[in-house]
Amino acid sequence: MSTSSNRQMKLAAYVMAGPVSGHHGGWRYPSAQHDILDVRFYQNIGRLLEDGKFDMMFVPDIQALPRRLGDSLASQLTHGALGALRLDPMLVLTAIAASTQRLGVAATISTSYFAPFHIARSLATLDHLSAGRAAWNIVTSFQDAEARNFGLKEQLSRDERYDRADEFVEVACKLWDSWHDDALMWDRATPQFADPSRVAPIDHHGRWFDVEGPLNVSRPPQGRPVFVQAGASERGKDFAAKWAEVIFVTHSSLASAQAFYQDIKERARSFGRDPDQVNVLLGMVPVVGETESIAKDKQALLDDLCDPEAGLSTLSYQLDVDLSPFPQDQVLPDLEVGGVQGHYREVAELTRKQNLSLREIGKRYGVGPLRDFNGTGGEVAGRMQEWFDARACDGFMVQMPYLPGGIEDFVRLVVPELQTRKVFRADYTGTTLREHLGLDRPAH
Amino acid sequence: MSTSSNRQMKLAAYVMAGPVSGHHGGWRYPSAQHDILDVRFYQNIGRLLEDGKFDMMFVPDIQALPRRLGDSLASQLTHGALGALRLDPMLVLTAIAASTQRLGVAATISTSYFAPFHIARSLATLDHLSAGRAAWNIVTSFQDAEARNFGLKEQLSRDERYDRADEFVEVACKLWDSWHDDALMWDRATPQFADPSRVAPIDHHGRWFDVEGPLNVSRPPQGRPVFVQAGASERGKDFAAKWAEVIFVTHSSLASAQAFYQDIKERARSFGRDPDQVNVLLGMVPVVGETESIAKDKQALLDDLCDPEAGLSTLSYQLDVDLSPFPQDQVLPDLEVGGVQGHYREVAELTRKQNLSLREIGKRYGVGPLRDFNGTGGEVAGRMQEWFDARACDGFMVQMPYLPGGIEDFVRLVVPELQTRKVFRADYTGTTLREHLGLDRPAH
Repeated sequence: MSTSSNRQMKLAAYVMAGPVSGHHGGWRYPSAQHDILDVRFYQNIGRLLEDGKFDMMFVPDIQALPRRLGDSLASQLTHGALGALRLDPMLVLTAIAASTQRLGVAATISTSYFAPFHIARSLATLDHLSAGRAAWNIVTSFQDAEARNFGLKEQLSRDERYDRADEFVEVACKLWDSWHDDALMWDRATPQFADPSRVAPIDHHGRWFDVEGPLNVSRPPQGRPVFVQAGASERGKDFAAKWAEVIFVTHSSLASAQAFYQDIKERARSFGRDPDQVNVLLGMVPVVGETESIAKDKQALLDDLCDPEAGLSTLSYQLDVDLSPFPQDQVLPDLEVGGVQGHYREVAELTRKQNLSLREIGKRYGVGPLRDFNGTGGEVAGRMQEWFDARACDGFMVQMPYLPGGIEDFVRLVVPELQTRKVFRADYTGTTLREHLGLDRPAH
Repeated sequence: MSTSSNRQMKLAAYVMAGPVSGHHGGWRYPSAQHDILDVRFYQNIGRLLEDGKFDMMFVPDIQALPRRLGDSLASQLTHGALGALRLDPMLVLTAIAASTQRLGVAATISTSYFAPFHIARSLATLDHLSAGRAAWNIVTSFQDAEARNFGLKEQLSRDERYDRADEFVEVACKLWDSWHDDALMWDRATPQFADPSRVAPIDHHGRWFDVEGPLNVSRPPQGRPVFVQAGASERGKDFAAKWAEVIFVTHSSLASAQAFYQDIKERARSFGRDPDQVNVLLGMVPVVGETESIAKDKQALLDDLCDPEAGLSTLSYQLDVDLSPFPQDQVLPDLEVGGVQGHYREVAELTRKQNLSLREIGKRYGVGPLRDFNGTGGEVAGRMQEWFDARACDGFMVQMPYLPGGIEDFVRLVVPELQTRKVFRADYTGTTLREHLGLDRPAH
């Protein structure tokens, strides 16, 4: 493991192609722009992040407009909550890749509702078009509403979803390797466009998939896209330890983040992997101001703009539990939830520790995790370094409270402080996302 | 129907995200660029086409690296034939949309191997990101090799593929209409991000698909993307007459093109549609030179670079027939083919009329259709106007013999001649692809 003196922080930006990225009041913030359907909105964000030398931009995704709270679309749509509108992340990120030179682009794609041939091909295309900057956030999905958009009555069980995901990723890797790195020759004279002895079918026959191959796209510049994962269930953590090169996690206490960090690095080792090839990024929603007082005022204004119902609506679908029958002024009882385990763990912790009512939980959930990372650029950078040095994480998934101002503030006020502290690059030293993240390129 | 005096020709460019667009010798042409994996290659093409005021760029697609000739990948890969490599069209076109302002972008997507929720969402995203310039070339696929990449032993029958396609398009239309045009409000004060009374599930339950909806993307700027289709079987022609707003067809004689044109307009009328809302575009591979002699020399050089096996390999998979057992120096006997009916019709016509051997057919197929559209800019424009005025077509699908030079020649030498003749726009008069093509925006 690298020593603290030269260890460099990784930075990803969590940007939703929809109304909310880090804070449910964000789209209502006075300076927030509302052209979330306009490609220039995303191109601008990409360029801002590249100015800030970010490793990558990360776009989450779901395959449904959620109706989990009271079996109604109303709360998501009225409040512009997290699932109210989502453009296809692959297209948004392609537009950004086409407008930037170095920024990595991480697309969320579910292994539960698509075919591996299609996804391997799209990701290979993105890696080629971005000249080696593609990442894949591998998710198994978690809502029945998503299953119902794809011809199923309900989703597979969590174990089945992860079984399928394992085989899905295996098939994708076989397809990326169906061309050797040197197969494409472009020799006009012979002619020899590609060498048939260096391209072969994969003939995969498994429990979930039968795929002949080869891919009709040559091997991606990075060998394969960088794998990102955010599973927090036991099964999810093992999946992450086996495959992920970037792990995205949210924790509201330093101690629990440190425990997760140690656990996941140990699990990676148990899968025979170098723990340094697994980057743990911690979610944070920074509200940054030129002075502490400006930051506090911004935070107060943002929080005012977040209706508790917005957070409850999103929490409902993320836990895959209808929270409408529970009294809002009482503490939520312990639940078995089918949805995102990491979110439930956070909620249960808050409920237990602070005795928050469900309404207060909705508000807290709506305003985003890790509220301690607020203040001036120096304060935020200092806190980030503290957690980084304490090995609570290898870097951060920065969830911007509003767009594009949240990025502008972070890039202008926080990034220079991190650079001064020598924990973050002054400029890119490589061209591919693997190079930014210090990840090996998988051999054929 | 508009009169000849103001009738305007439509122009689409057929660009493969791979080695061959219009001529199998194209990638070997000395000035052809070989950065077909580089986004800048496509961005440059997009800008050139927009300089030429093209209606749209059209990207074909298949879901397999074909091995139909002798059950081997070798011929496609060695010769860099039509199926040797294909990037994902949606991503290529998104990159182009992000780098242009007016050019339409038409993506080929199969209804046989994807889910309508996913495709409707991607196309809605492309229509938003391009501000109303998306088109969908609806194909049903035609190779067993594609089926084998998606878990099937063989493809569905043609009739089943078209049945599925019909329902697929119906579901997609329902999803695009699951948001009213005015549903998205972005009212920060109320707050009212979207009006829940203007967004509704579709609850589709059919033979092929069960989809709850609504889409998690608001209604596309064009209502729905422009529908493109190229079916040439009886079933395909009816499908086109029912749905298509642009029909792509290849014919090597004026008379057969005119007959098709009349037939398809009549079929559209029989489906209760205005025939003017159906644009028939004829495939052509122009080799253009500053003088007739330059054009002839270019053509000879290009043809020299096309090996008959390259064309045979592509023809094999397009007909879905292994042509390797047939003697190459003899005339191909009449066949029942499972693949693209339009291509077989062309091949059978050539075989019959000119008594060509299979090897000669391979060569002819490799060098592209409609060889009469060659010469100086004036000659090519004159021939185009002749076919256009004779109602053989409403415009052309220009298949560039090599890239990017073929586009540069066409835009610099042919387009100004068409503009002088007042059959093609001097500049865009609208902003969306529907406006370019004179198509109505579908009401909700």
